[in-house]
This record gives sequence, structure tokens and C-alpha cells, in this order.
Amino acid sequence: MAANATDTPTAQLIFRDELVNAGILARSAVDGLYHRSRTFENIVRGVEAAASAAGEGRAEPMLYFPPLMPRSVFELTDYLRSFPDLIGSVDTFVGSDRDHAALLQVADEGGDWTQALTPSEVVLCSAACHPLYPSLTGVMPTGGRTFELQGYCFRHEPSVDPARMQSFRQYEYVYVGEPDGATEHRDSWLDRGQDLLGSLKLPVDRVIANDPFFGRVGRMLAANQKETALKFEIVCPITSDQSPTAIASANCHLDHFGRPFSITTSDGEPAHSACIGFGLERIALALLKTHGLNPDRWPSGVRSRLWP
Amino acid sequence: MAANATDTPTAQLIFRDELVNAGILARSAVDGLYHRSRTFENIVRGVEAAASAAGEGRAEPMLYFPPLMPRSVFELTDYLRSFPDLIGSVDTFVGSDRDHAALLQVADEGGDWTQALTPSEVVLCSAACHPLYPSLTGVMPTGGRTFELQGYCFRHEPSVDPARMQSFRQYEYVYVGEPDGATEHRDSWLDRGQDLLGSLKLPVDRVIANDPFFGRVGRMLAANQKETALKFEIVCPITSDQSPTAIASANCHLDHFGRPFSITTSDGEPAHSACIGFGLERIALALLKTHGLNPDRWPSGVRSRLWP
Repeated sequence: MAANATDTPTAQLIFRDELVNAGILARSAVDGLYHRSRTFENIVRGVEAAASAAGEGRAEPMLYFPPLMPRSVFELTDYLRSFPDLIGSVDTFVGSDRDHAALLQVADEGGDWTQALTPSEVVLCSAACHPLYPSLTGVMPTGGRTFELQGYCFRHEPSVDPARMQSFRQYEYVYVGEPDGATEHRDSWLDRGQDLLGSLKLPVDRVIANDPFFGRVGRMLAANQKETALKFEIVCPITSDQSPTAIASANCHLDHFGRPFSITTSDGEPAHSACIGFGLERIALALLKTHGLNPDRWPSGVRSRLWP
Repeated sequence: MAANATDTPTAQLIFRDELVNAGILARSAVDGLYHRSRTFENIVRGVEAAASAAGEGRAEPMLYFPPLMPRSVFELTDYLRSFPDLIGSVDTFVGSDRDHAALLQVADEGGDWTQALTPSEVVLCSAACHPLYPSLTGVMPTGGRTFELQGYCFRHEPSVDPARMQSFRQYEYVYVGEPDGATEHRDSWLDRGQDLLGSLKLPVDRVIANDPFFGRVGRMLAANQKETALKFEIVCPITSDQSPTAIASANCHLDHFGRPFSITTSDGEPAHSACIGFGLERIALALLKTHGLNPDRWPSGVRSRLWP
């Protein structure tokens, strides 16, 4: 999800303080990393249940992914090319007793002990649907397949905005198959997603959007993505009416995943894919902003939708 | 939790295959990293609910931690000294367009592109209770405080054993206060934990244990920990009757956290702490092993305990 053009740090700090004072989130030593209360987690689980109900009968059995994914899979997604500043690569220690003693000496002297580490075979999950694709290598049936999944994602973008967490969950519906099927999935789920979020009485809107591609080349990629209307966001005011926050996004990936993961349609072409991702923490925050910090007092129609 | 003295890889592979064939877990390209089905996640959530009920009225409001924690907090836990081989340090990219181009060239040539990364301000969570301690710096009330919390932990120990995941959740009750209070917490929760797991009809046992301290010095630390009976595990056969798996563990930390995080008792001494941690994925696997791969057919007393 793209950074807002006009961030409003004062409003962000005020809302963050309100959440902390109400005991809904607690800050850690790092911006964008929070301890969450049961109240917050219950809202997240309610949104999960509502997202699940909205897709009832429309996808294969749900998958839950862990917060990590294989490095080999990450490398095939090409995420490193587009979003290097957001990644989280995991290092560990594989040395001897002697190496360990040297590492500790560096650490004790306040030095950079991570120099002694080695890249592990895992990285932090970059997007909830990335771990799915390697399991699909091969030929898709005619009409494609639709998946429902959820997982923790990482974005290295420390911010005072409570809606810009470094560690957060996406709930996704993903289609893999023919190009037409991908577009149809994206468009029908935009409608369905907007209905779902509207039924939670959130003042949502739909906008053409672009991903926060890195650097000079990235600016061209972003402009191109916007021109070709591949990505839409469902936005809702959280800390700014002028710059509402993306709480869901729906994208056509073209053959961006089909090609590297060798997924083809029945006629042998690289499969296309598309997904809608609901940002569970952001929807929870939008609900708290819109309906107030005490879920017991939310409109009964919203409560019954979240906690049937 | 310590590695078993006699691992039984054949039985582990067989059980892993059974779980995969039943659609309960799906393998990824990395050992110890699984996609989880709704069946598996529902069991985990049932165990969460049972662990919560067992501590009803005994702790402050529940906290949920994200899979990451501040590096500054990790450094104070001294985990790097004891378990360097298990850690996950998170690197990211903070360079320029030119640096990025160089990184991509290395990646495209199959080289180690992680050399161009920089340590971020976060690491993977080493134990569920670690993020708690910095919030307690100061003086504890007489009698101490008890916390209930949950979070994803990382251990770099790739294994074919489905019960040795790299990414898993711990549900903990943590005490911080006087030394006597810490011992009492550990002992009473060992009883309560054994009752809870027994009520799920798991054939559990209680054993004195040690953490898997690293290297030569670690062997002495482990022997000392066992001699002084600081750590107990509640174990249950999963892939071996001879080497049952730890599915919960309860430890006295002495002042291991009180001292570095400057937490004191009311008389100014470094606070002691103790915790019980329930391994949610391991308990789920113990249930699947003991009662079969179809939770619909589990004993009704077990089902009503998990899904009241």
C-alpha cells in the first residue's frame, strides 16, 4: 500500500496516544511495533470472520501462513527489485565456539555483532500470497483456482502512524488462472470488499492506486501501474480525511507470479493472478476511529457482523 | 525446549506425511515451516481458549505480541550468549538507487545479495515473554504481578520433526516480583498446566529439563540448570514413546530479566521472574497424535474443553 502523499503526523500521534491511553495498543521501543490487547485482537478476529463469510463457498479451504517464508520463494517473487527498502532478511549464527566468543566480544564492546551472522533459509513474509505460488507450479485447470489465506507480513517502514505497522496481517482471496478470470476476480472482489466494509459502516471509497516501488525506476513503474489501472485500493479516513488510508487493495498481477513459478493455463500460457487483500489491523483501526474506542458501544449491526 | 537425546527421524517423517496427507499441514521448501489448515488453526485456537480459561482471574489483561521485537530489547535478554544458533536477526536495505542496482546485479549473478543489507531495529521474537520485560522497568508492587500473553517465536532449528517448527506460538503466564512468588508461580502453574493437558486426555508427564545452551560453556550451564531444578517440562509422546516431546515448560529465571531491565522488588532487590509457556502448535500435534487426525471424532470431553 502506497505512502500517503500528505502524511499528517500530528493527527497520527494523537490517534496513537488515544489507542495507547485506552489500553488498546501498547508501544514498544520501535515505531510501528505494538503489543495488542485482547480488545484489539477480538476486533481482528471479528474482521477475519466477516472476511471469511464474504467469501463463503468461493474459494478452496483456508490456509494460514507463518510470518516467515523460504528465501528461495522470496527471490522468485522479484520483490527485491521493486521494494528493497521494505524487506526483512533473516540472519542466524552457524559458527563454532570460537566464533561465538568473538561475536560476544564485539557485542560486549557495543559493536555490530551481526557481521558474524549468516543468511538463513528464511525471510520475513513480504505479502500474504507469496508463499502460495510455489505450491501451484504446473498446469491450472480451465477456469483457474481461487484461494483463501491469511498471514503476517513485514514492511520495514517505521512510522508514528498506528496504521503503518511493521508487522501486520493480510487476509486474501487469490485467483490463479486465465487473464479474464484474474480481471473478473479483482473486479468482483472490489465490489464484494466494498460491500463488506460498507456493511461495517465504514465510510469507504475506491481509488486507483500504485505500489510504493523503490527509486527512480520505481517512479516509472508506479506511473505505469496507475495508467493501466492494475491496482485499486479501498480507502477509509483514519488519521486524515484528505488522505484516507488503504484498508484493502485489489490487484491484477498479470503473469508476474505465473511466469517465475512456472504456473500455466491449460493452453500452456503463463497463468495470470489477482488478489484482494484485507489489512486486518488497518480495518480494526478504521473501526475504532469510526465507531469509537469502546467496541461494546458500536452499532449493533456492526457488532453482529463481526461477532455473529 | 531441549532437543531430544534420541531423535527418531523415521517416526517423525511418518507423522509428518500423515499430517500432510490428511491436509492438516502443508510443507514448504524449508523444513520446519508449514502452511496450516483451518483444522489445525481451529485446534490452536481451542488450546488458546483452554489455556485462557485455566488462568481466568489469575493474571492482568491478555497481551498479544507480534512476531518481531526491538533489537535493543533482544540484546538485553542475553539470548545471544546462550542460544546464538537459534536467533533470527532482521536485515533490510537502506541504500541508494546505485546501491540497489549493485545489489540486483549480485542477485542476478546468483551471489549473496544480503551483503548489501543493514541490520534493522528489529529481530525475530526469541521467546514470547521477552518483549514484556522492558515495559516493567521500575519497582514491582509487593506480591509481584502476573501477566498472560501470546506470540509467535522463532527458533532456527530446521528439522523433519513436525513438532520442531521454526515459527510457532507460545501462550505464557509470567510472574515478576519476589523470589518466593516466582517459585510459587512456577510450581502452581506446573500443576495447573498438567491438569489442563490431562483434561485434554493427553498422556503427559513432568520432567526436570534444561535449555539447549550453545557450545562448551553451554553444556555446563545446562548441567547446572538441571542440578538446580530451575526448569521443568510437561512432556507427551508425539513421535516417540521413549523421547516424549515437551509441550509446555515452566521455568524460574531468577533475576535473569529483573537485573538487565532494571525491575526491582519493593525492597530494592532485582526482581525475580518465572513463566509457564504452552507450545500451541505442539499441543495441537499431541492432540492429533493421541486422538487421531479427525477432530470431529475426538472424545466429547476434549472437544467441549477446546470449543466450549
